[in-house]
Amino acid sequence: MTGVLSGKDLAAAIRAEAKRACEGALVTPRLAVVVATDDESSAWYVRSIAAAAARTGLDCQVVDLGAGASPEEVEATLAGLSAEESVHGLMLQTPLPKGARLEELARAIDPVKDVDGANPLSLGLLAAGLPAFAPATAEAVMALLDHHGVELPGKTVTVVGRSNVVGKPLAHLLLARDATVTVAHSRTADLAAVTRTADVVVAAAGRPGLITAAHLRPGAVVIDVGTNATEDGGLVGDVADVSGVAGAVTPVPGGVGPVTTALLLAHTVEASRA
Amino acid sequence: MTGVLSGKDLAAAIRAEAKRACEGALVTPRLAVVVATDDESSAWYVRSIAAAAARTGLDCQVVDLGAGASPEEVEATLAGLSAEESVHGLMLQTPLPKGARLEELARAIDPVKDVDGANPLSLGLLAAGLPAFAPATAEAVMALLDHHGVELPGKTVTVVGRSNVVGKPLAHLLLARDATVTVAHSRTADLAAVTRTADVVVAAAGRPGLITAAHLRPGAVVIDVGTNATEDGGLVGDVADVSGVAGAVTPVPGGVGPVTTALLLAHTVEASRA
Repeated sequence: MTGVLSGKDLAAAIRAEAKRACEGALVTPRLAVVVATDDESSAWYVRSIAAAAARTGLDCQVVDLGAGASPEEVEATLAGLSAEESVHGLMLQTPLPKGARLEELARAIDPVKDVDGANPLSLGLLAAGLPAFAPATAEAVMALLDHHGVELPGKTVTVVGRSNVVGKPLAHLLLARDATVTVAHSRTADLAAVTRTADVVVAAAGRPGLITAAHLRPGAVVIDVGTNATEDGGLVGDVADVSGVAGAVTPVPGGVGPVTTALLLAHTVEASRA
Repeated sequence: MTGVLSGKDLAAAIRAEAKRACEGALVTPRLAVVVATDDESSAWYVRSIAAAAARTGLDCQVVDLGAGASPEEVEATLAGLSAEESVHGLMLQTPLPKGARLEELARAIDPVKDVDGANPLSLGLLAAGLPAFAPATAEAVMALLDHHGVELPGKTVTVVGRSNVVGKPLAHLLLARDATVTVAHSRTADLAAVTRTADVVVAAAGRPGLITAAHLRPGAVVIDVGTNATEDGGLVGDVADVSGVAGAVTPVPGGVGPVTTALLLAHTVEASRA
């Protein structure tokens, strides 16, 4: 029997705590989201953040620069919002205009407002074990593992994907919890051999159905970070049907996604108290 | 036949290039080393850096605050030297006084002078694939692998040790070169099982003789970062006798060590040109 590691209850609990904090706050926490794309799934995600913020009692300020914005314009906007006292959390939505790199532009986000951990300084602080906001997606993986009682010390975890916003920071979060961590990626020679040694497999490659039952040791816990849009407007993860082999797997949608959004709000509340 | 991956020729070549650069420079590159310990092996290391700098044509300024220095004093000294125009490279020697953490104090090192990659911002930039100085030891491992023609793309590499100055930055350098990277450590449940899957094993745990022939797949390349002082004043690595099983191994002394020192000088020359 393969268990389902839902993120819905956890996300609801995180949002409920954030809501209580907002109700008792003197100043309403505000999250600013900078957008420089006309990508449809990005727009959908930003709307879902704004809706969750409204339900939870936060202000959400969407600053849409349009897909034609220059990197300099995006950077200046981030610097301006970093300096604005009323903004507590600040994130830059991807994809970005051609030639722009998130890790470069995000240097303009004040680390104390960097609620999605995109500034390389945040990544460095996190890696070094110093206080910093982790990218919400990476932290959502940890929160889901904890919520469902998955032990980490001494366990082997393979993270598939080496992005700056998921794979790399997640590796550091897992190391800090005493897991033995392997980072695999598109250039890994024999992915199945690497994932089959793992007690926990985190799929964060952005490739639908990449992880199959043949990639898993029986009983492995599988966290699916993939959010791949399907042609009919749906959402599929990086994990194929692994029931009967995996011990437990997160659903897509309803797994990592809602926890990520809830943590963005929780980080903004935390930043507003600093 | 187990090969020996000496670091001596490589170190000499790096120093020779640094020397040529110093000879042609308008301003003599200067490395400042801040010391706040009376540890004997630390003093030996600082003397060896100063001697290598002198031979290569760099100035080396040792600022010895004594073992009684407070963290605040160390931090202020680093900030002062960061602001000094004549100082191009700046490093803080360990061990540090009780209660002081390298990763916290090193935030006072200007990233452009952070020639030993100790500032968490340097680690974050490195992790994110942006320009930054890597810790010299981590880069020395990469330089040795390259010098001896060890291929990395698609290979499995296990790094034993998760320090902020070796294990973690090295994992990022290896990932950037398309290796599949595992970080193991003192809490790893079955170290031999993890290292035996690796084409390359990097021992950076600071435990004499930790890696034995039983930890290796036949033919594995072994890089020994350990520099453990023996009672008779000698130096031993983290790797026991692995001849006959390992494909090749770096010696201690004469492997990673001299390349590390040479790279510190090379980084300082590079910083002086920025």
